[in-house]
Amino acid sequence: METPIQSIGKFLDNEILIKREDLLPFSFGGNKFRIAQKFFEDMESRNCNCIITYGGIHSNLARIVSNLASSQKIPCYIISTHDGGDESPASNDFLRRISGAEIVECEKKNIAATVETLIENLKNRGYSPYYTHGNSLGVGNESTATSAYAEAFNEFDLGGGGHIFLPVGTGMTIAGLIAGKFLNSSRVKITGICVAKDRQITFERVQNYVDTYLKRHVDLESLVEITDEFLCGGYGRIDHEVEDTIREIYSTHGIALDPIYTGKAFRGMKKFIEKNHLSGEKILFIHTGGLPLFFDFIRK
Amino acid sequence: METPIQSIGKFLDNEILIKREDLLPFSFGGNKFRIAQKFFEDMESRNCNCIITYGGIHSNLARIVSNLASSQKIPCYIISTHDGGDESPASNDFLRRISGAEIVECEKKNIAATVETLIENLKNRGYSPYYTHGNSLGVGNESTATSAYAEAFNEFDLGGGGHIFLPVGTGMTIAGLIAGKFLNSSRVKITGICVAKDRQITFERVQNYVDTYLKRHVDLESLVEITDEFLCGGYGRIDHEVEDTIREIYSTHGIALDPIYTGKAFRGMKKFIEKNHLSGEKILFIHTGGLPLFFDFIRK
Repeated sequence: METPIQSIGKFLDNEILIKREDLLPFSFGGNKFRIAQKFFEDMESRNCNCIITYGGIHSNLARIVSNLASSQKIPCYIISTHDGGDESPASNDFLRRISGAEIVECEKKNIAATVETLIENLKNRGYSPYYTHGNSLGVGNESTATSAYAEAFNEFDLGGGGHIFLPVGTGMTIAGLIAGKFLNSSRVKITGICVAKDRQITFERVQNYVDTYLKRHVDLESLVEITDEFLCGGYGRIDHEVEDTIREIYSTHGIALDPIYTGKAFRGMKKFIEKNHLSGEKILFIHTGGLPLFFDFIRK
Repeated sequence: METPIQSIGKFLDNEILIKREDLLPFSFGGNKFRIAQKFFEDMESRNCNCIITYGGIHSNLARIVSNLASSQKIPCYIISTHDGGDESPASNDFLRRISGAEIVECEKKNIAATVETLIENLKNRGYSPYYTHGNSLGVGNESTATSAYAEAFNEFDLGGGGHIFLPVGTGMTIAGLIAGKFLNSSRVKITGICVAKDRQITFERVQNYVDTYLKRHVDLESLVEITDEFLCGGYGRIDHEVEDTIREIYSTHGIALDPIYTGKAFRGMKKFIEKNHLSGEKILFIHTGGLPLFFDFIRK
C-alpha cells in the first residue's frame, strides 16, 4: 500500500517531492483512508457492527468511513454539522449518500447530545455501535487515529536534510508523523500548515493526540513547527493565491490539489520557504487527498 | 509506471480482476495517458512545437493532451465538436481550459477544413504543429496510437484461462492489446464492449489500427470479440442499469466508473458473462480511467 514519492523539481533551491497519498486505491485515497482503516480495525476488535462518524458536507473522513462501511455491508451514520465552509453542492456529500450513509444533521452545540441519542437508539435496536471520535464529547479514540501515520512513518522519513510539510486540520495525521519521528529518533523536520483552526487550538489538539498515543508527555515544540500564518481566515476560506496555486499545480504537473486542505497548505509551504529562506532542503509535501474537493473547485 | 491489478471477488464463478489504469499518476490517469505520451514522443521526434488534438467536452484524450502540453509549456489546440452526448457542464471541459488549451469549435462535417486552416495559420506564425490524428482526415497516425497498449501488453496478459474485457470507443486501446496478443502469441481472450459506434464501424476502425501497426493484415475475428449489444443506443447514452452499476461498484469497492466508458462496459461485461455462461475464467476488466466523468455523473 506504499504510495509513490514524485519529484516536481526545484523551488528556490529546494527539491520539492510530493508524497502521493491521493493515489491510495480506495474512494479517491488520501490520509483519511489510512486513518479510517484503523477505525475499522478497532471497531472489529471491539465486536461492534455499525459505525458512527462526524463531519460536514466537505469531510473526506466521512466520505471514506461511509464507503468502507458500504463495502463491508455495515450500517453507517454521519453526524453532520455546518462546517462554516461553502454550502453549495459538495461531491463528498453526494458520495456519502451513494454509499448509503444515514446523515444526522445537527447544530455544533448539540453534537454530544445527538451522538448519545443515536448510540442509545442503535443499542435499543440491537446494534453495537462504534463512534470514530470516542465518547460523545469526541474524547477517547485519539490513539487509534494517531496510529495510522505513526505506523506509516518510515514511508515519509527523509532523514537529515529532509523536511515534511502537510496541511493540519484535525491534527490526526501530523500527530502520527510526530509520534513516528519521536519513536524512530528521526531528524526529519515537520512543519504543519493550519487549514482550519488557529495555532493554539491546533497545537493543543496535536499535543493531545501525540501524548495519548505515546502514553507520555512530549515536548511538542522541539518536534514540530505549526503555523497558522496561511490560514486565510479559517476553514474553507481561501484567497486568489490559493486558487492560482491549484490551477498552476494541475496545469504544470497534472496533480489535483483542493482549496480546503492541500491547495491552501501547498501555497502556505511556498510562502514559508520564501519567508524563512529555506535552501538546499529536500522537501516532502504530503498530498493528503481530497480529490472530490478539486472537482467542486473547478465548477466554481 | 505499472498499474496495480486488484481482485474484486467472484461473479458467477469467474474471478474478476480490475486493472487500475485510473491510478496512472498524471491528470487522473486512464488509457489516454499512455496513448497521449506516445503522441508527445512522436511529436518530439518530428521536431514539432505545438500540438493539435480532437475531442468533445467529455473527451479524456483532449484533457490529457492539453495537460501534457501545459506541463511542457507547449501550445495546445483542441478541435471540438458536439459529440452527441450530454451538453451540461463537463469536468473534462473545465480541465482543458485550466490547462490553457485553445478550443476551436466546429461542426463535424467541417473538421478536415478546420484542421487544415488551423495548421496553415500556425505555420504562418512560425510554429511546427503536430496533429494527434494524422492528416486532416484523421488518417496516418494509427501506429503511434496503437503502440501504447501493444508495448504495454505484458501488463495485461493473463495467459491460458485469462479473458480481458474493456470499453471500445476509438479502438486505439483494444487495437494495441490485439497487436500485443498477436506478437506474443498469447492465448488470452479479448472482448471489447462498444461504447460509441456499432460493431461494424468499430471493427473496421480496430482492424485498421491493428493492420497499420503490424504492417500486415491479420484475421481480427480470430483474435478478438467485439460486441455492440450493450451500446444503449450510442455514445453518451445510458440506462438505469449502467447508473446502478456505477453506484454499486463505488459503494462496494470504492472504485469510480463513469457512464460513457467504464460503467457502460462493466455492465456490458456482466451481461456478457451471464449470457455466454462464462465459468471458471480469470477475467481482467481494464479500468480505462475517465474519473472526471464520474464526478459529472454524481451531480446529475
